[in-house]
Amino acid sequence: MVRENIIKEIKDFDIKDPIVLEGLPGIGFVGKFVVDQIIKQAEAIKFAELKSDYFPPQVTMKENGLIEHMKNEFYYLKDFGEDKHDLILLTGNTQGSDFEGQTEICKVLIDYFEDLGAKKIFTLGGLGTGELVKDNRVFVAANNQESLDEVIQLNSTSIRKDEGGAIIGASGLLLYYAEERDIPATCLMGETPGFFVDASAAKAVLLVLFELLKFTIPLDEIEEQIDLINQRIEASQKIPPHVMEQQVQNQDDLQYIG
Amino acid sequence: MVRENIIKEIKDFDIKDPIVLEGLPGIGFVGKFVVDQIIKQAEAIKFAELKSDYFPPQVTMKENGLIEHMKNEFYYLKDFGEDKHDLILLTGNTQGSDFEGQTEICKVLIDYFEDLGAKKIFTLGGLGTGELVKDNRVFVAANNQESLDEVIQLNSTSIRKDEGGAIIGASGLLLYYAEERDIPATCLMGETPGFFVDASAAKAVLLVLFELLKFTIPLDEIEEQIDLINQRIEASQKIPPHVMEQQVQNQDDLQYIG
Amino acid sequence: MVRENIIKEIKDFDIKDPIVLEGLPGIGFVGKFVVDQIIKQAEAIKFAELKSDYFPPQVTMKENGLIEHMKNEFYYLKDFGEDKHDLILLTGNTQGSDFEGQTEICKVLIDYFEDLGAKKIFTLGGLGTGELVKDNRVFVAANNQESLDEVIQLNSTSIRKDEGGAIIGASGLLLYYAEERDIPATCLMGETPGFFVDASAAKAVLLVLFELLKFTIPLDEIEEQIDLINQRIEASQKIPPHVMEQQVQNQDDLQYIG
Amino acid sequence: MVRENIIKEIKDFDIKDPIVLEGLPGIGFVGKFVVDQIIKQAEAIKFAELKSDYFPPQVTMKENGLIEHMKNEFYYLKDFGEDKHDLILLTGNTQGSDFEGQTEICKVLIDYFEDLGAKKIFTLGGLGTGELVKDNRVFVAANNQESLDEVIQLNSTSIRKDEGGAIIGASGLLLYYAEERDIPATCLMGETPGFFVDASAAKAVLLVLFELLKFTIPLDEIEEQIDLINQRIEASQKIPPHVMEQQVQNQDDLQYIG
Repeated sequence: MVRENIIKEIKDFDIKDPIVLEGLPGIGFVGKFVVDQIIKQAEAIKFAELKSDYFPPQVTMKENGLIEHMKNEFYYLKDFGEDKHDLILLTGNTQGSDFEGQTEICKVLIDYFEDLGAKKIFTLGGLGTGELVKDNRVFVAANNQESLDEVIQLNSTSIRKDEGGAIIGASGLLLYYAEERDIPATCLMGETPGFFVDASAAKAVLLVLFELLKFTIPLDEIEEQIDLINQRIEASQKIPPHVMEQQVQNQDDLQYIG
Repeated sequence: MVRENIIKEIKDFDIKDPIVLEGLPGIGFVGKFVVDQIIKQAEAIKFAELKSDYFPPQVTMKENGLIEHMKNEFYYLKDFGEDKHDLILLTGNTQGSDFEGQTEICKVLIDYFEDLGAKKIFTLGGLGTGELVKDNRVFVAANNQESLDEVIQLNSTSIRKDEGGAIIGASGLLLYYAEERDIPATCLMGETPGFFVDASAAKAVLLVLFELLKFTIPLDEIEEQIDLINQRIEASQKIPPHVMEQQVQNQDDLQYIG
Repeated sequence: MVRENIIKEIKDFDIKDPIVLEGLPGIGFVGKFVVDQIIKQAEAIKFAELKSDYFPPQVTMKENGLIEHMKNEFYYLKDFGEDKHDLILLTGNTQGSDFEGQTEICKVLIDYFEDLGAKKIFTLGGLGTGELVKDNRVFVAANNQESLDEVIQLNSTSIRKDEGGAIIGASGLLLYYAEERDIPATCLMGETPGFFVDASAAKAVLLVLFELLKFTIPLDEIEEQIDLINQRIEASQKIPPHVMEQQVQNQDDLQYIG
Repeated sequence: MVRENIIKEIKDFDIKDPIVLEGLPGIGFVGKFVVDQIIKQAEAIKFAELKSDYFPPQVTMKENGLIEHMKNEFYYLKDFGEDKHDLILLTGNTQGSDFEGQTEICKVLIDYFEDLGAKKIFTLGGLGTGELVKDNRVFVAANNQESLDEVIQLNSTSIRKDEGGAIIGASGLLLYYAEERDIPATCLMGETPGFFVDASAAKAVLLVLFELLKFTIPLDEIEEQIDLINQRIEASQKIPPHVMEQQVQNQDDLQYIG
């Protein structure tokens, strides 16, 4: 059988010269956290969904017991921030599975962004260091010098000066596909250990976006998450290793294989 | 070469508005155990078989030395239980190999279920916790609220309140594909450590099915299996680790690679 | 690009109702060892070669520095053994890479065997136990009762009574594909630890073939190999672990990655 | 979607009977180091680039923060060395991802080399031994006796006398594809531990090329690299293991996953 990708538009919409924010799941779930927060706080409207045979063969369970299939979701905001940009927000619960899947999905995405008239793309993610950090720096990469300059002049951002570091998956590949279509694109990466959903790294990236796109959203929910995570980290650092192991076993992160 | 899937019908049959029970191999082999027991005790009749180039390239050896190829098998029961439902039972010795294979197989299966006029689907599996449990709970997920309510009202079932837990493979993906065809579908997952064929988890799921579909089958064979497994667990807990290792080496679970 | 399989016949040949012996690389390299010995000692003639894009992307280096590409090779012997059977011997330096590759290659092989008029197939391999053994038993599986009986009546063979043991790769899959074409097929598996080229297991399988096909070949070379391997095993059992590690590092089994 | 390979020629060029030097990334990055040095020191001219959906879905970050997509690059030199050969130099930042990808890419490459009239190919790589060495030997393999003799007569080269050693990826597969097109091809492998970019192994290979192709380039930059690496190795050998671990954590070799 041929493997299909289907973008279904569920709403009429009128978007002009949008800026795209990509927040698919990745290291530390940083990008997804950022985009989901903007969607929630700014009340963005969902207008399309991508289903694909290149997504992993599984579903997830919601708290209420209903299932959720693998998907990427497109939201929009009109006249957003001081400069009144139209925004497209991409979120979802998966990237393409395996190398071929990721390549396919990114081609579908860039085609759709181009059709929607995207003028600029921000891909958002985490920079995994394996270590806990006090202050999460935000690293930047871009497919053109102007976009790079625009971001790097902010105090809170830096270029990761390790030649050869890779950006894997949508956050990287979309920069290249955008370059081929002459769409300027920038990647913002929040520094994170990489082994839990990092609200702190997400906040750092969000603050950069506040400056770049001249908007703001309430940060209460993110701050709550940050406190919660910090409490867990402190608690775990006090626990002797063998007890830690048992605690982890009672954690909520279980696979349900059919 | 093109990879093929072939469903071969080996018997004429007349099924009306069937309910499907899916029991392909998965965690703890729970689903398969349940379906195989119903097939055996209720004397279901095999009417079709699926062979696929998306199954793993191997055969298994039966006790008598003859080989068995990789397959999914379809059985039926007519006028089953108090409500006299027609039942389709899906069992087999494999799921699709790798992500692409599992996606393909599930598409083939849902097409066939739809052709057979399936009115409702139950996917059966194990919820792997990594721990031994005294009483195996049965967790439920569904693709619609009504199916969820129908099951959750029973005392013996609960929703696993971990948002984001995944159901991988046929037991998960079929819920989604069924949703797309407007077929209500429910997943019942027997709590299991996940590292042996769990007759106890299977029994728990079977009891839920007894209530839902208003039937019963003799439980002698399952009870025997449960006793056998409990004996082995007790015995293994008395053995010092280094001796345990040697025992495992003498176990029957060997790979024969050609 | 489309991935291709090409069988190139390099010699005219006239074979009638051949018996096929399959000896592709597998556990303990048992099957390959057996077939290569028969080819060498009985001076079989190479008549065809299979090249495939489903083989791994690599070459091997021969002792003389020239490279050898990945291939399966077909040899024949006419009027062999007391019953004067025509024999086809399949050897090579690889199986298909990954699941899809193994499925493809086996389809190509069974088509070719059928074209060549194969009347019976023996697949030869190793049964990996992870342990050193004093006497290598030979286990058997078959796709039909008659073939099974023919082999199991010999003193030196037994059925491995572990239901569900798998035969992976060509030695397993060919039994199934042969069954679909009504070609009787049997798998002979020499018991082996599985982590070195096992001449002892190969000898055990060869002795069974001597009985079944009523032939013999000189065993000097195999005996030499067996002695060599036994010496190495004895030596390694006398060495303290940390020194053993260093020895392994000086071994000849290195990957040369371009 | 169909996966594409696109070779884009970016310059007119006139090459006659070129010799190809392949230096894609591999063990110890030896081949790439050699080719990049020749390109740099001899000021080779880039004339084409290969982009492929068979490359991994990622980009790398350059020191200046701009991204670089996955690619293979073709350079040429005219009338090079004493014998005034035309040279084609292949470099890049990736090989094909997974087995299928590597097979595809090599087919594209050999087609292009054949179109360009290649008369001879040298594939360059590392021979990974897992150990530090004082003097890096250069091992050779070839697809024909004449090419082998040409190289093996040099004092500084040897054949690795381990039958069955494999050359994986482009450096191996291109030898075979070249053989099918009657293009003589040789692989030069610099002995290397394999776990860092080995300038010392690269230098050894370069010296062999100096002799074979009768040219020379300044070695200052390579020597600098060699000193740098030796310093790091010495330093690391003085560090107690647990401190070493922490140092590694601060190293520059981090994955940035989007």
